[in-house]
Amino acid sequence: MAPLNAPDTHRTVVSVDPFVPADQQKGLHNRWHPDIPPFATVAPGEVFKVECVDWTGAQIGNNDNSDDIKNVDLTKIHNLSGPIAVTGAEPGDCLVVDILDVQPFDQMRWGYTGIFELENGGGLFAREFNSRACKAIWDFEGIYASSRHIPGVRFAGISHPGLIGTAPSPELLATWNKREGELIAAHAESVPPVAFPPEPKGAYVGAKDSLSGDVLEKIAKEGARTVPGREHGGNCDIKNLSKGSRCYFPVFVEGANFSVGDLHFSQGDGELSFCGAIEMAGIITFKTSIIKGGIEKFALKQPIFLPSPIDPLYSAKLVFEGISVDLHGDGKQYNMDATVAYKQAALNAIAYLMKIGYTREQAYLLLSAAPVESHVGAVVDSPNACVTLALPLGIFEHDILPKPEGLEKKDFGQCAIRSDGVL
Amino acid sequence: MAPLNAPDTHRTVVSVDPFVPADQQKGLHNRWHPDIPPFATVAPGEVFKVECVDWTGAQIGNNDNSDDIKNVDLTKIHNLSGPIAVTGAEPGDCLVVDILDVQPFDQMRWGYTGIFELENGGGLFAREFNSRACKAIWDFEGIYASSRHIPGVRFAGISHPGLIGTAPSPELLATWNKREGELIAAHAESVPPVAFPPEPKGAYVGAKDSLSGDVLEKIAKEGARTVPGREHGGNCDIKNLSKGSRCYFPVFVEGANFSVGDLHFSQGDGELSFCGAIEMAGIITFKTSIIKGGIEKFALKQPIFLPSPIDPLYSAKLVFEGISVDLHGDGKQYNMDATVAYKQAALNAIAYLMKIGYTREQAYLLLSAAPVESHVGAVVDSPNACVTLALPLGIFEHDILPKPEGLEKKDFGQCAIRSDGVL
Amino acid sequence: MAPLNAPDTHRTVVSVDPFVPADQQKGLHNRWHPDIPPFATVAPGEVFKVECVDWTGAQIGNNDNSDDIKNVDLTKIHNLSGPIAVTGAEPGDCLVVDILDVQPFDQMRWGYTGIFELENGGGLFAREFNSRACKAIWDFEGIYASSRHIPGVRFAGISHPGLIGTAPSPELLATWNKREGELIAAHAESVPPVAFPPEPKGAYVGAKDSLSGDVLEKIAKEGARTVPGREHGGNCDIKNLSKGSRCYFPVFVEGANFSVGDLHFSQGDGELSFCGAIEMAGIITFKTSIIKGGIEKFALKQPIFLPSPIDPLYSAKLVFEGISVDLHGDGKQYNMDATVAYKQAALNAIAYLMKIGYTREQAYLLLSAAPVESHVGAVVDSPNACVTLALPLGIFEHDILPKPEGLEKKDFGQCAIRSDGVL
Amino acid sequence: MAPLNAPDTHRTVVSVDPFVPADQQKGLHNRWHPDIPPFATVAPGEVFKVECVDWTGAQIGNNDNSDDIKNVDLTKIHNLSGPIAVTGAEPGDCLVVDILDVQPFDQMRWGYTGIFELENGGGLFAREFNSRACKAIWDFEGIYASSRHIPGVRFAGISHPGLIGTAPSPELLATWNKREGELIAAHAESVPPVAFPPEPKGAYVGAKDSLSGDVLEKIAKEGARTVPGREHGGNCDIKNLSKGSRCYFPVFVEGANFSVGDLHFSQGDGELSFCGAIEMAGIITFKTSIIKGGIEKFALKQPIFLPSPIDPLYSAKLVFEGISVDLHGDGKQYNMDATVAYKQAALNAIAYLMKIGYTREQAYLLLSAAPVESHVGAVVDSPNACVTLALPLGIFEHDILPKPEGLEKKDFGQCAIRSDGVL
Repeated sequence: MAPLNAPDTHRTVVSVDPFVPADQQKGLHNRWHPDIPPFATVAPGEVFKVECVDWTGAQIGNNDNSDDIKNVDLTKIHNLSGPIAVTGAEPGDCLVVDILDVQPFDQMRWGYTGIFELENGGGLFAREFNSRACKAIWDFEGIYASSRHIPGVRFAGISHPGLIGTAPSPELLATWNKREGELIAAHAESVPPVAFPPEPKGAYVGAKDSLSGDVLEKIAKEGARTVPGREHGGNCDIKNLSKGSRCYFPVFVEGANFSVGDLHFSQGDGELSFCGAIEMAGIITFKTSIIKGGIEKFALKQPIFLPSPIDPLYSAKLVFEGISVDLHGDGKQYNMDATVAYKQAALNAIAYLMKIGYTREQAYLLLSAAPVESHVGAVVDSPNACVTLALPLGIFEHDILPKPEGLEKKDFGQCAIRSDGVL
Repeated sequence: MAPLNAPDTHRTVVSVDPFVPADQQKGLHNRWHPDIPPFATVAPGEVFKVECVDWTGAQIGNNDNSDDIKNVDLTKIHNLSGPIAVTGAEPGDCLVVDILDVQPFDQMRWGYTGIFELENGGGLFAREFNSRACKAIWDFEGIYASSRHIPGVRFAGISHPGLIGTAPSPELLATWNKREGELIAAHAESVPPVAFPPEPKGAYVGAKDSLSGDVLEKIAKEGARTVPGREHGGNCDIKNLSKGSRCYFPVFVEGANFSVGDLHFSQGDGELSFCGAIEMAGIITFKTSIIKGGIEKFALKQPIFLPSPIDPLYSAKLVFEGISVDLHGDGKQYNMDATVAYKQAALNAIAYLMKIGYTREQAYLLLSAAPVESHVGAVVDSPNACVTLALPLGIFEHDILPKPEGLEKKDFGQCAIRSDGVL
Repeated sequence: MAPLNAPDTHRTVVSVDPFVPADQQKGLHNRWHPDIPPFATVAPGEVFKVECVDWTGAQIGNNDNSDDIKNVDLTKIHNLSGPIAVTGAEPGDCLVVDILDVQPFDQMRWGYTGIFELENGGGLFAREFNSRACKAIWDFEGIYASSRHIPGVRFAGISHPGLIGTAPSPELLATWNKREGELIAAHAESVPPVAFPPEPKGAYVGAKDSLSGDVLEKIAKEGARTVPGREHGGNCDIKNLSKGSRCYFPVFVEGANFSVGDLHFSQGDGELSFCGAIEMAGIITFKTSIIKGGIEKFALKQPIFLPSPIDPLYSAKLVFEGISVDLHGDGKQYNMDATVAYKQAALNAIAYLMKIGYTREQAYLLLSAAPVESHVGAVVDSPNACVTLALPLGIFEHDILPKPEGLEKKDFGQCAIRSDGVL
Repeated sequence: MAPLNAPDTHRTVVSVDPFVPADQQKGLHNRWHPDIPPFATVAPGEVFKVECVDWTGAQIGNNDNSDDIKNVDLTKIHNLSGPIAVTGAEPGDCLVVDILDVQPFDQMRWGYTGIFELENGGGLFAREFNSRACKAIWDFEGIYASSRHIPGVRFAGISHPGLIGTAPSPELLATWNKREGELIAAHAESVPPVAFPPEPKGAYVGAKDSLSGDVLEKIAKEGARTVPGREHGGNCDIKNLSKGSRCYFPVFVEGANFSVGDLHFSQGDGELSFCGAIEMAGIITFKTSIIKGGIEKFALKQPIFLPSPIDPLYSAKLVFEGISVDLHGDGKQYNMDATVAYKQAALNAIAYLMKIGYTREQAYLLLSAAPVESHVGAVVDSPNACVTLALPLGIFEHDILPKPEGLEKKDFGQCAIRSDGVL
């Protein structure tokens, strides 16, 4: 007699169609607010799946120009799945979240990396490069990604959620809005803006049951934007918070009400082009538990985590240094500024990649998307912070090491640009 | 007949006594200036050794109080061995330097990590902690370091030169002095100072043949201080520029005239307490070659390098996140500031280490000295940069993972503090 | 306008139901023979999927006794998916196969590891332990496996096909049958048998179109059994031939006609209990290319491969040594026998695991299934080969290191045994 | 006032001159016997150094022919430093040995790898290749080795003692001599011999105080040869028992009386050419402790160990498979023989290396000496054991990957051969 085996799958608590605009779907929302009701409830110890649209909610297509990037509506981002309540979680607890897997949808085996327009989204070098929309489409072949827009490389993904966090309490939300509002006020003219205040336009909550107009209005009016990471986690874009990691989040509301989205097939440290990871829709698998009073027990002002044992291992690397002097710009001396130092390291790497034939846009996208490692070297040698950026050699199809005879310059074409040809 | 074997050692081009004050020794200098003559000349392809005093030049002792740290004379640092000229190197070339080994002296198998006084040296948290002098002495047992002042940990060193660089041209030196002078002028009242201008007091050149007073005076008056890393390398304090790495330096003067010092037995990313590495005297082994016109060939605005295949591998880690909001201070929102984010990650780690029983000073020193990894997570999610700091679990003698029952607090005593007990 | 995106999946060239007996399904076969026609044909460069039943073809159930293992019909194994022809491949070529992914079925998120009866399947210690049927069911939670039958461990899988190979030519098949027949003849009485001759009973070919009885009979009569690895690859059970690896196979027939099966969620080096991996049904994703004349170009007597960049990294290990003396048995001295040395290392590890509370059966299964590394130490120190076996510490929920006070013995219950209780 | 610092070195308990024949020096011995008195005594917790001659005791020279290998006197090997007694160790205890460092002598920065004559030493392929003496001299440049006799490669060493073990009790010694004697008797005609019985000729004990003739004679007559590893450790030639590892040895006599020698700068798994590691003289640093009753506590039939965190990391590899069929010879089918499988994997690798231009002798030496990894794939797939051998790609100066166009064959000359030119 054959053994009795029956299909047995993990429950999917949020289901989406990755090809349908996010604001036409349930279980998605794009603001942080304590009044967003949980879309699903799970028990500690339960393994469950959450489906996610890509961060823009199907605004970007698998094609060969970047007009969709140019015209992206950023009031509608990020589209998060959830909130998901965990039975028994209370403010002051620590929510332990095992990120058990992150996979693209079978029917959508591609993702994208974009450079956004200076005036619509920006990116780390938006001003330096006076950025115009560009993108690369990445095809997923099992664990690997490669791109027709950036030939000559192939790498294994460090798949992870760019954005995962617990819901804020009303007090915490107020703190966020206050401090960011002050920053915005102090830099009112900045392009791109230094931060994003609550914005009713584009706000969306695809709750289980229809919310009253009052609640919806309150959320739209007060809800924190999803762009920055904050005390609850949020959009930290940490590439090593990848599948296989165990994360410890502070809990601020009953049930913890965590949300997740902005899945990345791969990302480099820094995610420099803003939409710099390989953005994808997909499915994430979780298991949770609760540690009572964990915030106090672990001095938890922000999440902590145990990284995965399975991130790709490319041991051979070429490392670029950067210091907090704008050597690629006006030569200005900054004061122990690790962001400037990171930028210099990245600019040094871009200059190198251009020597081997990539365009500046391709190099910018590649550093954003590939498993590049950036370490803080030192932040105490006044006045220069030092940051390094390491390019894994194993992702290139040819040898890119420095040679006595110099570097061979190949023709790698160009990434996808605007249909009007403006670069 | 026995085979004919004869002793055969690598040439030592700078010899020092690590117990003798640096300014009583030849082959050492503590300013950057094009007029410092080479102390030795090597041929490309030659393997040679360079002995180095510790960065302070024997000011710090293997004892149990921190008065030497409190009173350290920082006008005399860093003491560098060299300059070493490489035959045939010319401005515009790339000097390839293989760091073949870094070892402590057999007769001085210890090093130190120090927290400097707010008013004399500072450190990343000098203001936050109102720092008073502290230190930990580390004993070297083969590849491992451990400390009577920070019990409960032992780790393998990533030994490296904190400081290595080629000599600046007169033009480059002038650029440095100008840009740093402007920064100093803009922050004249800052404690600790934001940067250090040329300072004749304490300047030293232990040249082969006595230099004329004019030259000495010029060097003392114009010579750039050694604290920050710059275009030539310098005090970058990159822990992974370790023994086994191959580095590519831009050449600015005939012979390249590179100098090295500030050897570290180990260091964490960030080197946060300023004298944060395990500082040691020791011996470094080099081999060099020259790539003609390498600056242009490799777009070399700063050094690049291939890291070593033998850095310690501690795969299990506990990772702390930090964002650019001063959550441990006044809650201020900064604008995409990776330095602030790094500091928050480090403060989160310190808070955690204090939960398991380390004092704040021990935790500060430990994060500085152990093989801690700090990655730039993302620097595009306005307004919050995100930086992570990963604590290797394998360096601890006991299990420090988060547990449902909380963390066990042990008594690890205290590091070496001032003899007057002021903390 | 929303971008035009359409579902786009990789073609599945063999589809199976993992819960249905293999001999009721198409696209499966369980013997090696050149006359088995290709079930599907793919083009070089095409990404495609192949579904596989577990190696027994649904004979084993997710339950808590081992009667199914006891009664397993081994004449029906291994059930392979294929053959798959690659357009353009000819004898003498090298078939390059990228193993792009290996995943369990969504609806069957479990696998099993079994100890087989001495008289039905055996295993490395079948005689030493007088083995009776045992098993452990492993539940898959994303990248991790854990078992209710072996509590206290959890690990990330190194998922791979245990069996993958190209079809033999008639000459190669004849060579196999001849040499193995001679070995069988020389050890006719051995229990378990030393090898398996062609066996018509249980032979199965689920071809696309029905084969003539003559062909079927020939295949059944001559077809090589699938148990051993051979020149074409086959059942090599190499854990590091995992998802992400690129393999180079010799081609012996037109089209190469490769087959694959025996998927493993995880396996330890040695796979000691025979059914020692975590056996699973699942889906494997491939891409192929052809190198003309590759056998000669690369001196390819057997497959070679480039391992994956993403195998789990557990750097902390406890290593057991073994030499070619039967220290756990009669003390007999063997002559440079690495198999005996491997067995001693494994027996040393089993003895250690029993000290911390696992039963001998649990320890045997755990070493088989977990990402254990076994290195050949030395095979030249006459008369003792030396082999090591390394247990990754990170897979255990508690600290298993040697302690001055000895090892704490816990109660981990027992794995699934026979319903009659015989052990 | 300068701090009071004084030289402070670790005690050297055995001092040797690496250029002087071993049998003219104290503190060395070349047989295992319980009556060899300890040469030095150390306390638990003490860090101390032991100097070692190379295993032959200065018989091999840094020159360009292999006559010294041809004529080596193997009755005089291995030359071990010790025995070293540890205060308080008793039979039944576990001796914990931290291998803190392994370094060559400053004045002897080279080592050698040799192929021995079929009739004098042999090696894994002595019969297959009808071996004649060959060697490669390796120059040490810091952490790296390279050889004028095998150009085109450079690698970081995994330095370790090939041989380290505790003294046997009289009973254990008797067991060794009995079981090995029986093996020798059963293969009396074998060339090279299958094992080595006690041999008074060449036996040497460089004790502290002169031993009585009776004792010396007894040791010479009964003393076990040092070639194989055994229950006490001994000549296991495990490359990962490297500097930084912690080892747990069973204790058989009062004081443990451990000895060490046969230092290797580097070695590949398998050490296939017998004198296959990079043999060197050098200095090893230790610390010990004792766990009372450790043999029983840890079920210690043989040593166990925790490997070092600092072995070289070359993640990119080319892997060769081998099965227990003599595909490079007469095609004979062996029965689950991992030694045969290892040999096939190695022969496959040698054939590949010859395609890129190395001679068979160079390839044989290179696989022996470089950080090659050999894993036991599976030893349960009757009748074929499967073993893999992984060649690290990062050690080669050029790209050796399989290419569609085939492999480029370079001219790498030849290793050092006999002065009479016989190969």
